[in-house]
Amino acid sequence: MDTYRFALLGFGNVGQAFARLLLAKRDELQTQHDLRWQVVGIMTGHHGAAVNPDGIDLESALAMIDAGDSLDLLSTEPTPQNGVEFILSCNADVLFENTPVSYHDGQPAIEHISAALSTGMHAITANKGPVVHAYRELTRLAQAHGRKFLFESTVMDGAPVFSLWRETLPAAELQSFRGVLNSTTNLILTLMEQGKTFEEAVAYTQSIGIAETDPTGDIEGWDAAIKVSALVTVLMDVNLKPSDVERKGIESLHSEDIRSASAEGKRWKLICQAERTNTGISTSVRPELLDPSDPLYSVMGTSSAVTFHSDILGPLTITESDPGPHTTAYGLLADFINAVL
Amino acid sequence: MDTYRFALLGFGNVGQAFARLLLAKRDELQTQHDLRWQVVGIMTGHHGAAVNPDGIDLESALAMIDAGDSLDLLSTEPTPQNGVEFILSCNADVLFENTPVSYHDGQPAIEHISAALSTGMHAITANKGPVVHAYRELTRLAQAHGRKFLFESTVMDGAPVFSLWRETLPAAELQSFRGVLNSTTNLILTLMEQGKTFEEAVAYTQSIGIAETDPTGDIEGWDAAIKVSALVTVLMDVNLKPSDVERKGIESLHSEDIRSASAEGKRWKLICQAERTNTGISTSVRPELLDPSDPLYSVMGTSSAVTFHSDILGPLTITESDPGPHTTAYGLLADFINAVL
Repeated sequence: MDTYRFALLGFGNVGQAFARLLLAKRDELQTQHDLRWQVVGIMTGHHGAAVNPDGIDLESALAMIDAGDSLDLLSTEPTPQNGVEFILSCNADVLFENTPVSYHDGQPAIEHISAALSTGMHAITANKGPVVHAYRELTRLAQAHGRKFLFESTVMDGAPVFSLWRETLPAAELQSFRGVLNSTTNLILTLMEQGKTFEEAVAYTQSIGIAETDPTGDIEGWDAAIKVSALVTVLMDVNLKPSDVERKGIESLHSEDIRSASAEGKRWKLICQAERTNTGISTSVRPELLDPSDPLYSVMGTSSAVTFHSDILGPLTITESDPGPHTTAYGLLADFINAVL
Repeated sequence: MDTYRFALLGFGNVGQAFARLLLAKRDELQTQHDLRWQVVGIMTGHHGAAVNPDGIDLESALAMIDAGDSLDLLSTEPTPQNGVEFILSCNADVLFENTPVSYHDGQPAIEHISAALSTGMHAITANKGPVVHAYRELTRLAQAHGRKFLFESTVMDGAPVFSLWRETLPAAELQSFRGVLNSTTNLILTLMEQGKTFEEAVAYTQSIGIAETDPTGDIEGWDAAIKVSALVTVLMDVNLKPSDVERKGIESLHSEDIRSASAEGKRWKLICQAERTNTGISTSVRPELLDPSDPLYSVMGTSSAVTFHSDILGPLTITESDPGPHTTAYGLLADFINAVL
């Protein structure tokens, strides 16, 4: 049985949830999938970094983060000064890249993943930046080194979207899709329908940790646009940047709009769509007024959904409810298993 | 490039749709997947059989069926007397078994698939009988011969359900599911909500070819129960026969029930469910009165849907709309590609 050596770059909500999932599934991975793992490096944004070729005790690392301590205390090696230095010092088999997303250029995550693939590591990420800004280059680099670059968690958390097309729908061509892909705005609209003001709703999404301190990326539709870009780039084989997506956020919707929609039995949703046209791809992110016959009408709260239209199947919809860091973490684990088995 | 030799046993709506799909995707399979195929045998229920080691022209076969002619005219070999004789005479690489389902014992499809696997063929079927009555035996037989036994089309047509769990959700354990899995009864209930009587609705489903001449299997819930059995047997690793499922059909629902539900903003659906318990599995098929907040409330007409609950993800729902023989045919094609690539 092989033991895979993991480097965890980024140890926020998702990185920590992944660590807990690894611990919870340790025995099952060993007995049912013949897979062992060992974490040889963890680099955090604000709590230091640890590199130990003999393995880092994950439970200790989680406890130290909870206590506000620096992981430097767990390191047996000199503290790396940046992500690339960290990756090169780990001598790992798999990099899990979970640093914060950069919408405009995907850095430094692209550099991190390049460094990992170039030195023979698989690279797995929940970070959308590298997918929309360097999918083809990183995939080619992975192939050249006989490794995998996987990113299931970047859209709809751990729900299978990329692997659905890669593994289960061969010889089907994606022609269009339409979905609700941003949890924060969908929860805000749900709360406003329940009577909260926009400001109260935003504050609530921040209080439960799903919106950033600056929630602009969600509210103005950038997060939805980067997900549209990722799906189009990977599944429709057309390079598309977030800035190429026609984009309107929910900032223009007022409580009055929500109330009057509700009075008519309708509902506003931030709808993402993409469609192949004669000249390329037409894409948009914008609020739409849905009536109850629309399959996306009932996608409430933090749930998300996407309907795929292909040349060969009727509309196929994937709906994910109750997402969270633990479901994003599952996408990382599924990618790891798919990469090595 | 390999050329795979196909034997098509059963050439009704699904078998013919599969033949049309093979013709439509011939070039794409060759250029994008490096796969060639040749049909060396077709056996029908009422229009004879053809075996030709040099390949049968599929367009001619489809035209002859349309014209009501016997396929015997296309054969270069003696006419086989039964399915097993047909399989043995074909010398094929892949058997597509699409004979009518037998709810109570899965025969003769199990014999057909056994014969195919034993002689080194992959066996792919849209027939639920072999899955619920011989899944483990046939899977072991396939493994012993280094071949695949696949059956994606048996539940929700070509929508990926089995391959979803096999390929995209590793190390996740299915704990329960709930769904609308029988298209005929769902369409009947939709039509009754629109004002048709039960008898008119049944007649309509027969007129469009989705219900059998004797629609009892659908109406009494047997088709739904066999799908529950298939999902439980394969995805939850517990053998379950259709007769083990607590079962109540839609025959007890009257127009008055549908109307009064509608007046309250509710809707009757034939709901399938299964749940792991301390002592095993609890399963049922029965009409349930759903309110609009239920995710299955909006599954109308011939659409179907299933929500999976696992140990590791939030509820994950797959919804398929506009199914038909062409989508069942796609499941067969996807299984073939997954078997050989």
